[in-house]
This record gives sequence, C-alpha cells and structure tokens, in this order.
Amino acid sequence: MLFIPVSGTPLLMVTKSLSRASDESPLENILPLSGRKALLPLLTDHGYGSLKRVGLELDVLPAAQYIGLGQQFAQAEFIDISPTIRQLRMIKSAYEVKQIRRATTVVDTDYREIGKLIREGMPEIEVDGLLASLARRQGHMGTMRMRGWNQEMPTAHVLVGETGTGLSCCETPVNGIGITPAMPQGAGFGRVVRNQPIYIDHGVAINGYHSDQTRTLVMGKLDATLARAHACSRDILKHLESVIRPGITAESLFETARQMAAESGLADHFMGHGEGQVRFLGHGIGLEIDELPVMAPRFNLPLEENMVFALEPKFIFPGLGTVGIEDDYRVTADGVERLTLTEQEILYI
Amino acid sequence: MLFIPVSGTPLLMVTKSLSRASDESPLENILPLSGRKALLPLLTDHGYGSLKRVGLELDVLPAAQYIGLGQQFAQAEFIDISPTIRQLRMIKSAYEVKQIRRATTVVDTDYREIGKLIREGMPEIEVDGLLASLARRQGHMGTMRMRGWNQEMPTAHVLVGETGTGLSCCETPVNGIGITPAMPQGAGFGRVVRNQPIYIDHGVAINGYHSDQTRTLVMGKLDATLARAHACSRDILKHLESVIRPGITAESLFETARQMAAESGLADHFMGHGEGQVRFLGHGIGLEIDELPVMAPRFNLPLEENMVFALEPKFIFPGLGTVGIEDDYRVTADGVERLTLTEQEILYI
Repeated sequence: MLFIPVSGTPLLMVTKSLSRASDESPLENILPLSGRKALLPLLTDHGYGSLKRVGLELDVLPAAQYIGLGQQFAQAEFIDISPTIRQLRMIKSAYEVKQIRRATTVVDTDYREIGKLIREGMPEIEVDGLLASLARRQGHMGTMRMRGWNQEMPTAHVLVGETGTGLSCCETPVNGIGITPAMPQGAGFGRVVRNQPIYIDHGVAINGYHSDQTRTLVMGKLDATLARAHACSRDILKHLESVIRPGITAESLFETARQMAAESGLADHFMGHGEGQVRFLGHGIGLEIDELPVMAPRFNLPLEENMVFALEPKFIFPGLGTVGIEDDYRVTADGVERLTLTEQEILYI
Repeated sequence: MLFIPVSGTPLLMVTKSLSRASDESPLENILPLSGRKALLPLLTDHGYGSLKRVGLELDVLPAAQYIGLGQQFAQAEFIDISPTIRQLRMIKSAYEVKQIRRATTVVDTDYREIGKLIREGMPEIEVDGLLASLARRQGHMGTMRMRGWNQEMPTAHVLVGETGTGLSCCETPVNGIGITPAMPQGAGFGRVVRNQPIYIDHGVAINGYHSDQTRTLVMGKLDATLARAHACSRDILKHLESVIRPGITAESLFETARQMAAESGLADHFMGHGEGQVRFLGHGIGLEIDELPVMAPRFNLPLEENMVFALEPKFIFPGLGTVGIEDDYRVTADGVERLTLTEQEILYI
C-alpha cells in the first residue's frame, strides 16, 4: 500500500518482500506491513493516526477492502481519486514516452516477422501464439493491463475474413469470437485464407507501458471494397496527423474521422456495423491500454502536450472481413508525433 | 450482471451484446441492460424492486460499484457471498473435471515439445514465449485468471539455476525476478546453461478451467543435492497419493510434506529459503488458479470428492537453483486421482 501525505514523504508499505521492494523501488521510505489490519498502527506510528480525508482509487479497489479501511479509519472521509489519477496519467513524462517508444519498436518487429511465418491454412490462434512468442523474446512483459473491472486482453486479436466481423462484447468495434465463451475475444479456430484480410490488433508492454497497434495483412489480393476502406483508414490518420495539436478536443478527432468515412460512402461500416457500431476512434495508452483521453462524443477535453494515445479507424464488412489501422501518437508542443514505426499500408505477405 | 433469486429463474442482464450473450449463454432469461443505473428499474419490472438482502462478491467487486448499488437499493442489506461462492466452486462437476483434464493434456504436450526446442544459451523469456505459442496452438484461452486483487500470472515461470532462487513477491515459494519491476515474476533475461536446473511452472486454461504444473528440466547432468531434493518432491507426491481421501484435511497435506522434507534433511530448503520460506503446499484450481482449498496451516477443511487441486513440493537452494514438481489431482470417492499425465521425474533434454 502506498500512502501519499499532502506534505511529507510517501510511505510504501510492503507485506512481501521488504528486501525485494527495497531493491526495486526508487521510493525512500519502505516499511514492513504485517497485514491489512496493521495499517492504522503503522500510520499512527508515523503521525498519521487521525486522517480526516483519504483519497482511494474506488473504481478498482475491491469493496471488501474499502469496507475494511472504513472500519480502521472510522473518522475519515473517503474520496474517490480515480478520476484525478487517470487525468494525471494522461500526460506522460519523458521516461514514460521512452518506454512506449520501446514498445512500439517491438510491435513493428513483430509485424515484419509475422509476415514471414504465416502460412495458408494456419489457424488464427497459431498466429496469435507466434506473436506472443516474438514479443516475449524482445522483452514484452507477458501481460496486457486494463483498468476496467474484469477487462482483459490477449497479446493479439488475429481475425481472418468473416471471423473479424462478429459482434464485440465490449465498447470496441472489433474483438472477435475467440475460441471459448470463457474468453470471448481474439483469435479463433479460423484459418488464414488467400485473398482475405488478416486483421491483427496487437499490443505489447515494456516496463509496464503499452503500445497498441493494428495492421491488415493479406496473402494474395484484397477485395476492392476492403482495399478502398483500408485506404480511407490511412487517409483519416494522415489527415488527423495534420490537424492534431494542443487545444483540439478528443471528441473532435472522432467527429472528423466519422465525417471522412461518411464522405467516402463508408458510414455504415465505420467502427462497426449495425448493432455493433460504436462511437469511438481511440484511447490513451500508458500503464493501461484503456487510459484517457477517449476519442468519443462528449470527451470535450482539449489535448495537451505529451498525451499519448492510439487512433484506430476501422471498417467492418459482414461476410467479407475487417480492415483498419491503429497507430500510436504523442501530442507535441505544436502538433503530433507518430510513434508507430510500421508503414500505414496493407502488409502483403 | 447476473441476478439469482432465492426461488425463480436467474436473470442475466447484458449491456453488450445481447444477441451474442443469447448465442453463448445456456441461461434462459437474458435481458438488455442499458447501463448500471438501469438495474433497479429492470429488476422492479421483474418483481424484484424491494430486495431486503443481497449477496455480492465483495472481495472482487470494485468499491465504486458497491457504493452505486447501495444508492440504488437503499433499503437492502448487502452480504459478502464470496466465501460461499469460493466454497461452492471447490467441488467440481463432471463437466469441470473434463475441462481441467483437457488443460492437463495441453501442458503435458507442452513439456514434451519444449524439451525439443530448448537450446543452450536460450533466454528464459524465449522459452516462456515458446510455451505460450505451443499452448495457444492447442486451444489455451490465452490468459490465466487469479481472484486476488492485482494478481496476475504469465503462461509460465521459466527460471534457470540461480534465477529461480530470488525472493517471491507473494505467498509462493518461487516466482522469479522477471524482466521488469512492473511485472516482478516469471522468466527473466537468464539463459539456459548446461547442468543447471530449468525450473518451469506452467499453466494453461481451456474453456476457463486451469491446469497448473511444474517440471524440472535439465540439459546435461544435475547437481547431486538438487537431484536428491527433486527425488524428495517425487517421494512426497507418491506418499500423498497413497493417503489422500475424503475426510483428510488440507493442512495435513502440508504438514506431512513438511515432515518428509525435514526427515530428508531438507527442511531449510522446503518451499523457500530464509525470508522467502512459506508454509504452503498447494491450492485449488478451476476457473481461477488460486481457488480453495489451500494446503497450508489453519486450513483444517476436510477434503471432499471432486475437489481438484495442485500440489507443488519445491526446494530452493540459493546459488544453485530451484527444483520441484507440481501435479494436479482430483479427490475420488475413496482416494485421489492424478490428473497430470507427465512423468514425475527430471526431464533430461
């Protein structure tokens, strides 16, 4: 547990192991904590026995622990500081940008390497497993982290042709059927087929920081409608790269993209189809892959320098497949920097 | 959200997507839920508007949602039903045992295949990535699930020689250093060295159900002390297989194993060393890999038929390495069935 007083040095209280925490954490005050019930005595020893207002991350803290803290700190008022923490995390430090940059490099290598390994008839889950293996070898920490309760994400969504067009089980346009309702997303038992889009949404985390990128691979030739939609994804990103700067709102990026899709006659396929269509274009990335800002209606937050996010214009065509691009960006002092290294074209293999 | 009345049909309330939930769930009453605030009106429509006592899983439900439910159901008393649910889940149905059996088969194949792929000098994280790839190809759902807050586990802990002897950051004897403090467990940058133990703790989930198994691989010859400790792990499991039956307590398994380790002169290395030693031998497996029962002091619960768990006697030798075996078991009407298929010997490669 980390205790941050309004003034004074933070206290990191560790159940196990103290010596390891001392090796790994840059914080100065690291104290042994024998268990949750020992929290009040320990804080009392350090002069914090009668707290009046305490901020907690109530969106993730389990209710039982919240109730337990209420019993220990009976006189304290608890405030939900989750929104504040999420807002603070929107702006990345130079260290954080460096970690995300490293993660984008890993994904770029994965996209170049996976093209050499994919064979006709290979199951989607095998492609997914190969990506996990490629990423791990380069230092991917092995898991992806989401803040939302019960949210989780495998290393990649690998969806060939029609399997990429099923209804998503969350607020995203595409997430696949998966191989079991127990994990209802991502790669399934579908196989790589010539001339069908191989949609890959792939993430990696380095030192806790995520990159999240999507590419469309094709073995052979892509259907003209899908190729045109893919070009529209690329045009949307190119245009947004020319307009993003501090002060522009998150929701305006969605609105601009939606308009461009509509002008191309692709409104019905943009970010989903029918019941599955969502009003969403992108999301912050950092320690979690569902950070702020969100590029969606009502997020009228003005962008600021060193916000880092993924933009993912995608098009879904039932019966045909899903195409799109997802790239990572950092807002600069007067524009935007594309962190993704991979080209924005269809990757023919 | 799933609402289970004391009598009557359960209601599964789904925000997204209703049609997909209807395809995937065996439940009969699946209803659209427009958002969390719509819960009270929806339950009221179904005659459940004035609930008196409501059970919730307070160990995992986020505090903010708990507070929100309290505002909607102002007259209701909330009860923590987590212990009840965890107890119910201890006893597996025939369907559940079948899924775990399938998962053990995948792990068995992985152990046979990985031996052919490991090369001298290969980094631990590369071995881990290869296991992820092997498991995924066979239908591993891609993630491992733990109930504990902020707990997570990669597909495998691959620890060569001394890297397997660092202090664990949780209540387990071994979890490795990892490659970053942001994910302080599992495979690191260590490399496969001849004549050193390659400790692999590897899990897989099929249709939500986990298998969790550990093997010690060696390229070349194993140090005599480590080989003797490994034989003690095997002897402990063989002995427990002869004594486990319904009625015997979970804690007695730990105590028996601890005594056998002590009689072999290995007390100081059993389930950790020094500060890192833990009083623990195994844990239930099912939808989560940290289920009940726990084989540890004070868990005086008598075993029952169709409890499924992993037993993992391990020995840690600072400077040398870690060895051990972890196998999966099901309690039968009058004994125990070993679900693990892999032999209990050192796997020489």
